[in-house]
Amino acid sequence: MSKIAIIDQSTSEFTRDTSLSVQELACDPCKRILRNCKDSSMKIDAVILSTTSDIQYGSTILSEYLGIKPIISQRLDNLCNSGTNAIVSAYSLIKSGLCKTALVVGADIRETKGSQLLWDISRGSFTLPVYWAALFAKVHMRRYGTTEEQMASVAVKNRKNAYLNRNALFRKKVSVDDVMNSKKLVEPIKMLDCSYICNGASAILLSNEEEAKKYTDRPVWIEGIGSSTEAASFSNVSSELSCVQSTKKASNMAFSMTNIEREQIDVTELHDAFTIMEILAYEDLGFCQKGEGGKFVSQNNIVINPRGGLIGTGHPLGATGVAQTVEICEQLKGLAGKRQVNDCKSGLVHNMSAAGSSSLVLILS
Amino acid sequence: MSKIAIIDQSTSEFTRDTSLSVQELACDPCKRILRNCKDSSMKIDAVILSTTSDIQYGSTILSEYLGIKPIISQRLDNLCNSGTNAIVSAYSLIKSGLCKTALVVGADIRETKGSQLLWDISRGSFTLPVYWAALFAKVHMRRYGTTEEQMASVAVKNRKNAYLNRNALFRKKVSVDDVMNSKKLVEPIKMLDCSYICNGASAILLSNEEEAKKYTDRPVWIEGIGSSTEAASFSNVSSELSCVQSTKKASNMAFSMTNIEREQIDVTELHDAFTIMEILAYEDLGFCQKGEGGKFVSQNNIVINPRGGLIGTGHPLGATGVAQTVEICEQLKGLAGKRQVNDCKSGLVHNMSAAGSSSLVLILS
Repeated sequence: MSKIAIIDQSTSEFTRDTSLSVQELACDPCKRILRNCKDSSMKIDAVILSTTSDIQYGSTILSEYLGIKPIISQRLDNLCNSGTNAIVSAYSLIKSGLCKTALVVGADIRETKGSQLLWDISRGSFTLPVYWAALFAKVHMRRYGTTEEQMASVAVKNRKNAYLNRNALFRKKVSVDDVMNSKKLVEPIKMLDCSYICNGASAILLSNEEEAKKYTDRPVWIEGIGSSTEAASFSNVSSELSCVQSTKKASNMAFSMTNIEREQIDVTELHDAFTIMEILAYEDLGFCQKGEGGKFVSQNNIVINPRGGLIGTGHPLGATGVAQTVEICEQLKGLAGKRQVNDCKSGLVHNMSAAGSSSLVLILS
Repeated sequence: MSKIAIIDQSTSEFTRDTSLSVQELACDPCKRILRNCKDSSMKIDAVILSTTSDIQYGSTILSEYLGIKPIISQRLDNLCNSGTNAIVSAYSLIKSGLCKTALVVGADIRETKGSQLLWDISRGSFTLPVYWAALFAKVHMRRYGTTEEQMASVAVKNRKNAYLNRNALFRKKVSVDDVMNSKKLVEPIKMLDCSYICNGASAILLSNEEEAKKYTDRPVWIEGIGSSTEAASFSNVSSELSCVQSTKKASNMAFSMTNIEREQIDVTELHDAFTIMEILAYEDLGFCQKGEGGKFVSQNNIVINPRGGLIGTGHPLGATGVAQTVEICEQLKGLAGKRQVNDCKSGLVHNMSAAGSSSLVLILS
């Protein structure tokens, strides 16, 4: 079977305010890709729109806005990991032979209903995600001695990275003290420990091997895909709260598809919805031993969240997984400018939904 | 590559009123399939929920309701052809090797926002689908002499078929006079020319060849898939209104994938959102010559809409494409009871969205 490549990528600026609709926002990152397609006489066979917003027929509306008539057009949601799920759909449509190329577009606006989890009655009145982040943090602190300062260091690192990313929402560096002194939301989570739901759109173009070679000298290959759905409700998410089961399973599945080992990963975009979730992800992705995540914040072997992660770049729900993938593609292609990781050969994307109830992992090279 | 099969199918009763949520409704047709899975020790690798309702994380919520932990879970929308699009996604996930099995569930309730096309500003205040049906009807009548009685005959046939379908919304036969004398909505479309948006849910289970053979003696094979997206807005749907371009393209693509010829199709479920759309589909699917659709209503070579189509069975938007596929599977397996078509070897599903702006065709055997 043909290998599947990501052959182009683009992202909009992530913003706090916008006057654009989701569809209009979604067009922004597609414009540059469509120009390149025109230059290469490349036809787009599928359009998949990842969004948590309620635009019925949204991918077909977007296709009309873009002036293209794809074979297949679908709008997809799986909350915060909609973006990487859309990439998996595009991968499959091409792998199956139904399509040669597929455009994946993630777009959301700040007012999306995905910011509270009203359907999850097991949360009682604790519908905001910060409540479950606090539970994860408390368990990890108690069991492994993880400190609030270590969590704060995650925010410091990611905001520092975002400072170099002109598309990021937050372009001001912060110190550990700034995080520690920011408004306490739910013990021990403070304002600067959190990502922020914002407006944004990102897009990638996938193709089979043959089309990839016509389009670019440096296709990014999808080497591994892992996915796991544990539950939808927080009360069913895990038997214990010091790890995210779905991430562990997705990570193992993705690495089992490829010869690339964890030690070979040079760069990773992982789902830091809250600082504690980055620490858990270090462990659950297998980058460090269980319980060592707090100390791992200061390591230098793998570059983690070079664009600034969700904390620095902002979190437009349906766009996030696509935006993470755009960053890894730019890093692998040497196009990341001031953020460029040296000698970057293999990368990983980790994208999660609703308290880690489902996770998706991509390995790219 | 492995062939892909539909190995189980089930549908709920389609109703005018329900006290159930979309998620609850979606569980109904899955229950029997899950019992069979348990008996066969079959694991469900993917759950794809097709719906136009706004339940974020809906497929994952459904998975939790059903007590299953799939690898991949996605909610999908492409308006009225969401159902067959979900089948194409499931097909691709299996064909790509990421999954061995996939459960596709279509579910919608009558109050869905998909019943009006408010985003399509090219319709002006004519947001209800009946307006475009009237335009298609007038063009066909003027150009090919199609009569209101021929259109009425489509409703008579489909309501007669629905009379034998215990899950259908409308179980009362009607006469040509009944249709002709029903309330005129938009010249020449009358109340009984229309399908009716209702509550309903349907489900199918897909697998690769190996799993199919373990599960059933009579898998239904997906032989051909065709899809086409022409536009989202009515004003861009077609250069001329006597045919549906997306259906012609989808049909040609589906037949080009298989050795099955149009003459070999024994049974078809096609998208009769309005009686005129059934007549157009006869022509656009290639069952008769252009302009002959009106006369084709009375033919007996291919059984069209044996469950009663959308007009007889009702039209729960996101469920319709799955429900059509359930019917063709039951026909091919000889399980259609009083509706059983004799010596049924090959079948076709035709599922359309928003004024035929996109279409999907499946060929099954």
